[in-house]
Amino acid sequence: MDIIKGGVTAAKGFKAAGVYAGIKRKRKDMALVYSVVPAKSAGTFTTNIVKAAPVKWDMKMIKENETAVAVVLNSGVANACTGEEGEINNYKMAEAVAVNLDIATNTVLTCSTGVIGKQLPIDVIIEGAKLLAENMEESLDAGAAAAEAIMTTDTYSKEYAVAIRIEDKIITIGGMSKGSGMIHPNMATMLGVVTTDIAISKELLQEAISNNVKETFNMISVDRDTSTNDSLIILANGLAGNKEITEKNKDYDTFCEGLKAVTANLSKKMAADGEGATKLFETVVIGAESKEQAVSLSKSVITSNLVKTAVFGNDANWGRILCAMGYSGADFDPDKVDLYIESSEGKLKLVENGMATQYSEEYATKILSAKEVRAIADVKMGNETATAWGCDLTFDYVKINADYRS
Amino acid sequence: MDIIKGGVTAAKGFKAAGVYAGIKRKRKDMALVYSVVPAKSAGTFTTNIVKAAPVKWDMKMIKENETAVAVVLNSGVANACTGEEGEINNYKMAEAVAVNLDIATNTVLTCSTGVIGKQLPIDVIIEGAKLLAENMEESLDAGAAAAEAIMTTDTYSKEYAVAIRIEDKIITIGGMSKGSGMIHPNMATMLGVVTTDIAISKELLQEAISNNVKETFNMISVDRDTSTNDSLIILANGLAGNKEITEKNKDYDTFCEGLKAVTANLSKKMAADGEGATKLFETVVIGAESKEQAVSLSKSVITSNLVKTAVFGNDANWGRILCAMGYSGADFDPDKVDLYIESSEGKLKLVENGMATQYSEEYATKILSAKEVRAIADVKMGNETATAWGCDLTFDYVKINADYRS
Repeated sequence: MDIIKGGVTAAKGFKAAGVYAGIKRKRKDMALVYSVVPAKSAGTFTTNIVKAAPVKWDMKMIKENETAVAVVLNSGVANACTGEEGEINNYKMAEAVAVNLDIATNTVLTCSTGVIGKQLPIDVIIEGAKLLAENMEESLDAGAAAAEAIMTTDTYSKEYAVAIRIEDKIITIGGMSKGSGMIHPNMATMLGVVTTDIAISKELLQEAISNNVKETFNMISVDRDTSTNDSLIILANGLAGNKEITEKNKDYDTFCEGLKAVTANLSKKMAADGEGATKLFETVVIGAESKEQAVSLSKSVITSNLVKTAVFGNDANWGRILCAMGYSGADFDPDKVDLYIESSEGKLKLVENGMATQYSEEYATKILSAKEVRAIADVKMGNETATAWGCDLTFDYVKINADYRS
Repeated sequence: MDIIKGGVTAAKGFKAAGVYAGIKRKRKDMALVYSVVPAKSAGTFTTNIVKAAPVKWDMKMIKENETAVAVVLNSGVANACTGEEGEINNYKMAEAVAVNLDIATNTVLTCSTGVIGKQLPIDVIIEGAKLLAENMEESLDAGAAAAEAIMTTDTYSKEYAVAIRIEDKIITIGGMSKGSGMIHPNMATMLGVVTTDIAISKELLQEAISNNVKETFNMISVDRDTSTNDSLIILANGLAGNKEITEKNKDYDTFCEGLKAVTANLSKKMAADGEGATKLFETVVIGAESKEQAVSLSKSVITSNLVKTAVFGNDANWGRILCAMGYSGADFDPDKVDLYIESSEGKLKLVENGMATQYSEEYATKILSAKEVRAIADVKMGNETATAWGCDLTFDYVKINADYRS
């Protein structure tokens, strides 16, 4: 597997665009991803009962149709809690793209992100759809423009791509995502689009992405708030020329591995760029007796406000980590836990069998001062492991969210 | 029912003390509550798997013994994650009080709060026990000193008392508590002691307090972090002279009502004095089809970081409230929800049937600027209701917790 440049336009036969339509702020606010041939579509979406209009649309379209051709995305307005008018506006957004690209409306998937409860400025969106069609290109720059256009409070755009080999063919998988706040994905993330030129059946594509998110997007959290708009869409257009994958053979495994490289990278970037975050905070649970246990424990640690503020303060307040494990709902023996912290500055054992070691607070602070820090908890019950990604809780998180709408 | 002055010394035959022993900071750090005759004891404790030494001790003592005579409490060190040494120190703390009061060690309950993972400075504690015995008084001032001594990051001490009438007797119920951070009680709160002179069987006393917390302490949250030390202890010494309550008759109901007045008041004070909080944020769910549904929905709203920061910013960002209800796990129809905000400044309907009304943002901000604000969500499915109490998430919460240990 090779890491390559680009995002959604890295794979063969995908074009993209990112433009300023004028929805909210003076920066790019609409994006398009387009496949030159119909692509198998799959996706995972929010489990929140309150689902945005585009989420309802995509779930229906992906279920009813074998393929999709385009994904249109906007930032600024989430089109959630907008009733029937919101659903009509969402349809109009898909339709406007379809008209400009001369394709069927039901082959256009939609994603929105931004303020909840506001209607889409539909005239602006329709103009934007035209601009997107005019600006659509196969270049990596066009993919980058799309990634930029879906940002809200993100401080940088998020793209990643890899090339894998199946048979004698080079298969490319690339993606983009946006995150920042209201990030506690449950079956999907805020907005993410992955494109690939692999030939694969729709069923296996869906299974691959559904399993994938369990270890990637569903393992990150910025603020424990599961959004109304979480959407992860994957398009596979088959242009790599491999024999279509229709069973779970080693080619399928190779694809899943490549897919995980892309989504795990985007997940980590989203966690690190959480609203107001100064650092990525990773928690690895090892020695668990089940995957489920490892997941509960690791997610409980990265979502604790008290752990997150301690990480912000570079304070090795390990009691809060054990405490968060303790209320996770997973069973374990606190008197057996070993706990380490690790970063580019080194690795330190803070706790052995549930009690503090004679560690140096000064060295602990140095380790925690890095841009990426990791806590490792060994519960000594088995061989399962899980990794969760979060970020610190800072003054800026409060600042951003106390006046997000203004 | 009459609201009266005082806290744990309001009821007949209870003495208290609060002293500076020297555990951590230059302020009162040890407290004692003492009943002049053995009192029926009951309590509820943290559900966190990681339980502090005093929690383990109290659970055992309350189970094994019909009565207790004293409760000793310290702030500064939580005596959690301290292994066998921690349990020995906890025993020594109970023993020191027993020796000074000339009572059996197993009649002394213990509570600790503060930093996790540090051992109690046991010599200081033993000296403190002596001071407590010397300073113990029946006065309301002594009760107030005890309430002050258990504070950690609390900005004010929390006491409340009521008098009720059963038969021709005046029954008094008074309590104190401390909260502030790591507050998301689950079967109990950080530390609370309630005293009453009622005569009641131990079984009914336990049942009364266990049911009570479901609507009081278990309905508050500051930061979703369930502590290792949550303890709520109630002592009933029977000195009011009523005929002992041994069945669930109307006298039992009268007692439960009085008890709820005390614990609900302490709960609200704890929420309002959450770490860094500028205001109390209450969420009332009405029209629910079950109590469980109402509880899930109301707690999900008050625990959302995004809702809490919006409340801090006086921003009527109602989409976040609906979003938090949506991921609560409880089922409802988002398209039927009506949502109001209310405070001393007025009441405003923000959402009708899941969509925004034409409300004035300016007036909404005015309502949210009060010291106590309330969101009311009507899900229109039945007649059940629940109230949860939280606070806003502020710069000061981050500040306090980024350097709590230093």
